[in-house]
Amino acid sequence: MKKEVAIGIDIGGTNTVIGVVDRAGNLLAEASTPTLTNTDVKNYLDVLSAKINETVFELDEEVEVMGIGVGAPSSNYYTGEIVGASNLGWGDVVPFVELLRQYYDYPAIVLTNDANSAAVGEMMYGGAKGMKNFIMLTLGTGVGSGIVINSELVLGHDGFAGELGHVITERNGRECGCGRNGCLETYASATGICRTVSELNANTKIPSELRKVPSGQFTSKMVYDAAVKGDELALEAFERTGEMLGRAIADFVAFSSPEAVFLFGGLAQAGDYIFKPTQKHMEENMCFLYSNKVQLLPSELDGAKIAVLGASAVVWKELEQIEQ
Amino acid sequence: MKKEVAIGIDIGGTNTVIGVVDRAGNLLAEASTPTLTNTDVKNYLDVLSAKINETVFELDEEVEVMGIGVGAPSSNYYTGEIVGASNLGWGDVVPFVELLRQYYDYPAIVLTNDANSAAVGEMMYGGAKGMKNFIMLTLGTGVGSGIVINSELVLGHDGFAGELGHVITERNGRECGCGRNGCLETYASATGICRTVSELNANTKIPSELRKVPSGQFTSKMVYDAAVKGDELALEAFERTGEMLGRAIADFVAFSSPEAVFLFGGLAQAGDYIFKPTQKHMEENMCFLYSNKVQLLPSELDGAKIAVLGASAVVWKELEQIEQ
Repeated sequence: MKKEVAIGIDIGGTNTVIGVVDRAGNLLAEASTPTLTNTDVKNYLDVLSAKINETVFELDEEVEVMGIGVGAPSSNYYTGEIVGASNLGWGDVVPFVELLRQYYDYPAIVLTNDANSAAVGEMMYGGAKGMKNFIMLTLGTGVGSGIVINSELVLGHDGFAGELGHVITERNGRECGCGRNGCLETYASATGICRTVSELNANTKIPSELRKVPSGQFTSKMVYDAAVKGDELALEAFERTGEMLGRAIADFVAFSSPEAVFLFGGLAQAGDYIFKPTQKHMEENMCFLYSNKVQLLPSELDGAKIAVLGASAVVWKELEQIEQ
Repeated sequence: MKKEVAIGIDIGGTNTVIGVVDRAGNLLAEASTPTLTNTDVKNYLDVLSAKINETVFELDEEVEVMGIGVGAPSSNYYTGEIVGASNLGWGDVVPFVELLRQYYDYPAIVLTNDANSAAVGEMMYGGAKGMKNFIMLTLGTGVGSGIVINSELVLGHDGFAGELGHVITERNGRECGCGRNGCLETYASATGICRTVSELNANTKIPSELRKVPSGQFTSKMVYDAAVKGDELALEAFERTGEMLGRAIADFVAFSSPEAVFLFGGLAQAGDYIFKPTQKHMEENMCFLYSNKVQLLPSELDGAKIAVLGASAVVWKELEQIEQ
């Protein structure tokens, strides 16, 4: 019997990563191709499908492709559409799965947002193996989330459930790209911690090497590097970021009482600098019913691979459902 | 074939209501017995079981009892325990299902908190029929919640999921019985709206007949009656209560993207006085992804019966799972 594989695709703003993954989560091959933006999406799909075919063809062993899982921003699993992803420039509503079906007729062709596929990846291959209830928070440029309840991804009535980056953590707080104020992602993302540094620059007299960096040129990596060197202001920025994140998680816990909350993405890579204050404020703000019950954990999956692994994992989940 | 029925039991602080309910949700008989508090729970169970037997015995038709569903505060479905219900005075941890099994050996004997059973009742017999994703908020002395996702009650890792009354709606806000500050239930409950009236008495000069009522003697019914008569301060109290509730719901929606949010309980009976401001602030505070997608609805079940109907409905859900 040929080895069954799924294709995992991660569409980023610049590059698209393609992975061929077996059921056990082994990445048999990986490739990448530029994400052609601001063009007819069919031009992109021509290039993408050619690259997929080439990658499968060049494998050392014969495989049977069972499906394609695509992780992309603003994606809707139910409709197979990418909605309002202005950075891609393919139009307001892109029927991505329908278009991909013109190239492939695999039983499972699925689209999810990247945080949801990261959650499925963590559940199938990572630290959430065996967990029925957990939350995955991706702390990147923004804050994304994938919520698993009773072993199922929470998609909601319309497929857009799990936008925890847009829960209001600070009433009348920072302006958010969504048009509102005080969303979690304005504080607990890579961008958010830079805004916190700017705020500390303005409001405190804490000495810091970060004051030499022109505002607008900060990166979260700079804040991390400064914190490692003991920079007081950088450490305070992590403390405040952890406070906002911990508060928010305490409320999420009252909703779904998960076994664990996983942190993933650029900011999560700061390790103890972000985990310690988050853990502290999470417990301080949590209703007593949940005290010391919820684990705050780093993702166990390789950061560079979680997106394609997760996207491929959604294919296996989909096949399970088809088989039922 | 005998008609199959489930016994629904609603344990209140003063009285326990018993209902015999068929699969279609018809209440064939109802009875009540005092909730014996501050005693050995076995004394209470002796009285309760005698009353159950009597109620079933006196039915006009022969029935087959399929199970007992109990709704009680601070209940855990997984363990069958009532935990920390100090007002009942039966001890910190009461293994209620285990004790009830000494009287009955029906296949399904289940315990849930009252908000969860209300949600299941609404799903089986009320306005949530056919909905896979919705949230039930019970606005009584406190605020309880029952969350349904993918047609299943959200119980969480430990059985204590869905305590939305203890999400922090106002940072450093009102003192809550849970030991923290600013929980939703300190604002959006029957008690909460009375506290809002006291606050408005103190902080505004809005004229009101409620100013004649000694603080501490308000009831939410008085606030409602005043609002109906056009009392400005009472109307403002409803506006502010709706603001807090609407804000909170906007965040819940980002979690599970439900088809509808149901309001139930004393405060929900105020109709438009509470629904209109809640709806307005819910939409104002909601992330654009969900705008005008979520219905805010009153429970369709008879307020006096929802508790026993809901508790009995949990029995049928349990039997479905056993049969699977």
